[in-house]
Amino acid sequence: MPYAAWMLRQFTTSMTFETRGRGLREITRRVAEWVAEVGLETGLLTLFVRHTSASLLIQENADPDVRADLDRFFARLVPDGDPLFRHRDEGDDDMPAHVRTALTAVQLSIPLADGRLALGTWQGIYLWEHRNRPHRREVVLHLLGE
Amino acid sequence: MPYAAWMLRQFTTSMTFETRGRGLREITRRVAEWVAEVGLETGLLTLFVRHTSASLLIQENADPDVRADLDRFFARLVPDGDPLFRHRDEGDDDMPAHVRTALTAVQLSIPLADGRLALGTWQGIYLWEHRNRPHRREVVLHLLGE
Amino acid sequence: MPYAAWMLRQFTTSMTFETRGRGLREITRRVAEWVAEVGLETGLLTLFVRHTSASLLIQENADPDVRADLDRFFARLVPDGDPLFRHRDEGDDDMPAHVRTALTAVQLSIPLADGRLALGTWQGIYLWEHRNRPHRREVVLHLLGE
Repeated sequence: MPYAAWMLRQFTTSMTFETRGRGLREITRRVAEWVAEVGLETGLLTLFVRHTSASLLIQENADPDVRADLDRFFARLVPDGDPLFRHRDEGDDDMPAHVRTALTAVQLSIPLADGRLALGTWQGIYLWEHRNRPHRREVVLHLLGE
Repeated sequence: MPYAAWMLRQFTTSMTFETRGRGLREITRRVAEWVAEVGLETGLLTLFVRHTSASLLIQENADPDVRADLDRFFARLVPDGDPLFRHRDEGDDDMPAHVRTALTAVQLSIPLADGRLALGTWQGIYLWEHRNRPHRREVVLHLLGE
Repeated sequence: MPYAAWMLRQFTTSMTFETRGRGLREITRRVAEWVAEVGLETGLLTLFVRHTSASLLIQENADPDVRADLDRFFARLVPDGDPLFRHRDEGDDDMPAHVRTALTAVQLSIPLADGRLALGTWQGIYLWEHRNRPHRREVVLHLLGE
């Protein structure tokens, strides 16, 4: 099989996370474990969150204050209950959650090198819940490589 | 052909959209139609908008108020004619359109599963025009899969 | 080799950029040169910055005022030394740099068509340094195509 050495393949899975309400939850480990299981050497991982009020974020994984500060900044920038918003079907934090999602990302792609995600030393992958109450969030993963 | 079952292929196309000036325009259907035509089972779709004053966004597709609120929020956050801006070659909404683009995304990747885009129930794909006047916008699509 | 015509391949590299402190630095040329060297016709390029205080951005490459205005807007939106922030291990611009990164992107994917990046006429690729002092920044590139 002369092609096998550089034949690209793809793999997909889906992960569910229970959030505890607004805030950043690190998901690096679970993602990295799946990537390790698949066992590719080089490639590209794409994560996609199937919601409109939660984001995916790469941020510092060292000082927990960073996550708290991020959330505090966004709470000030997009205040709950802002009279500007008409859409409030699910409460004061409904539309702010959509705006926070628009200001961040629902999708991330991360290269894979030497069998590992090419994250920098301080980078962790986070699921950012923007609603005040706990929610069940689904992330779809697509991995391409060889 | 023993490889055929898992051989990856790629497809590309380009779509043009006429916008009506500032605001979100849903493009999910046209994108999904092309994906269905290509007929892959599993893969990854990437959309890329070839402009610096329009974005791609995944947002709620149910209540139209969400789109109006998003636009209203961004209009307040990045006001047209803000004296902070020096670049105003094309008018008061020129630089705000660039800032709005920087705050959102010009590219989105969405996994494909079971022959469909893995969008959540409430997720639609939107082209967000940031200029006040109508523009012709081009979106390049890249589809990878098998 | 009947498959050769549509066999996908992938390539990766890493680039280091020395920034001069806060501001946008165009990296289009160096990225395009590598893409040209690899010599694919159609595909998808992904760039990923391995830091939590620098971003990747696609913006207008014509008027330098655009870059200055972008930076000025973000400096006002996320002020250095804001008392809201607790995390200030590396100074007044530490947490603002993280917030600016969260508001923008650490990853970009750009389709390749006819042997070139499918960038629009006015689009350039920028590395956005959010810290005040110069830093060495690493960008990982993944190129898929044929």
